[in-house]
Amino acid sequence: MNFETKVIAISGASGSGKTLFTDTIGEELMSAGADIQILREDHYYRNQDHLSMDERVLTNYDHPKAFEHELLVEHLEALKSGNTIEYPQYSHKEHTRLKKTETKSPAHVIIVEGIMLLASPELVPLFDVKIYVDTPLDICLLRRIKRDIESRGRTLDSVIQQYQETVKPMYHQFIAPSRFIADVVITQGGKNRIALDVIKSHIKQILK
Amino acid sequence: MNFETKVIAISGASGSGKTLFTDTIGEELMSAGADIQILREDHYYRNQDHLSMDERVLTNYDHPKAFEHELLVEHLEALKSGNTIEYPQYSHKEHTRLKKTETKSPAHVIIVEGIMLLASPELVPLFDVKIYVDTPLDICLLRRIKRDIESRGRTLDSVIQQYQETVKPMYHQFIAPSRFIADVVITQGGKNRIALDVIKSHIKQILK
Repeated sequence: MNFETKVIAISGASGSGKTLFTDTIGEELMSAGADIQILREDHYYRNQDHLSMDERVLTNYDHPKAFEHELLVEHLEALKSGNTIEYPQYSHKEHTRLKKTETKSPAHVIIVEGIMLLASPELVPLFDVKIYVDTPLDICLLRRIKRDIESRGRTLDSVIQQYQETVKPMYHQFIAPSRFIADVVITQGGKNRIALDVIKSHIKQILK
Repeated sequence: MNFETKVIAISGASGSGKTLFTDTIGEELMSAGADIQILREDHYYRNQDHLSMDERVLTNYDHPKAFEHELLVEHLEALKSGNTIEYPQYSHKEHTRLKKTETKSPAHVIIVEGIMLLASPELVPLFDVKIYVDTPLDICLLRRIKRDIESRGRTLDSVIQQYQETVKPMYHQFIAPSRFIADVVITQGGKNRIALDVIKSHIKQILK
């Protein structure tokens, strides 16, 4: 490789718009031929094959320990060294990893998105740019309810119970304080056109 | 002019580091030959020649109305149209405008910095990128005390009195809410190297 890989972290609450923000940047830059790879933290939810379904639903999915961050660290270091990785696949319906993986190649810029990226001391030193998408909690909740019911097959009651028991308290404990270590904070969510252009400009500058 | 002028606003509390942030970007880009002009909102504090010194100290300098925003609007429109402006000069010691002005030329990118930029509905539509420097209030206060005593000839008691009577309440009424209309928020103040690079990248992209 004749370049130094740069890693950009995009974090924020569940429903903040960080996925849309990441996808929009990725699509717009990749359609122009940019050498970018995207990793999602929720692919690194721990394998729970050894647990029954009744046990799996008891996991606190809003705690940093729910993620196999040690594998994400290993993968980021591998990609930075020019090696491919076997990117895990996760089923939010089965609450565990799938058997298959996806081979991902190294790239000049790697974008990682997820809720606990900036709350994880083992990950933070690997990020060259730390972005936090700061969206009011009520708007995040609206999006979360819609997504979990429509795409993840949950009931409204189970969404509300999880929100009160883990999503909200873990947000205040881990995610909200991580805003203060971000280099740049994005308000107005994933459709913030000016912020998209600002971050795209910086990635283009890195890729030059 | 064979370019469209873009205006970048950098706002935030007094002492937030927005001036250092602006100056660092300006110096680094201008030393590389970039076509940039910087305007400071506090040059637009209203002329108070008609008031006695006793009356001048009663002005609420932390309210949007303390600024001649209508002149700043006029100047931004003039610069965008390719015309020069007569940039006002203000004495923070005499609490009024100086007689002299400085002639400023149009530029491809104009950076405006000041506390009330995003709290002023007449100014906001003129900004192409809206940046808010978000620094904890205690850190802002520390810097403000040092600056006002060392550079503006104030006593500690007068700084404390102004802080409690106008700076803090006006911050909560006007400045803090203006964070939500910013496109990008900068944490960690004027020395945030990554944020400086991100914003510089975007300005370079505009200048291309």
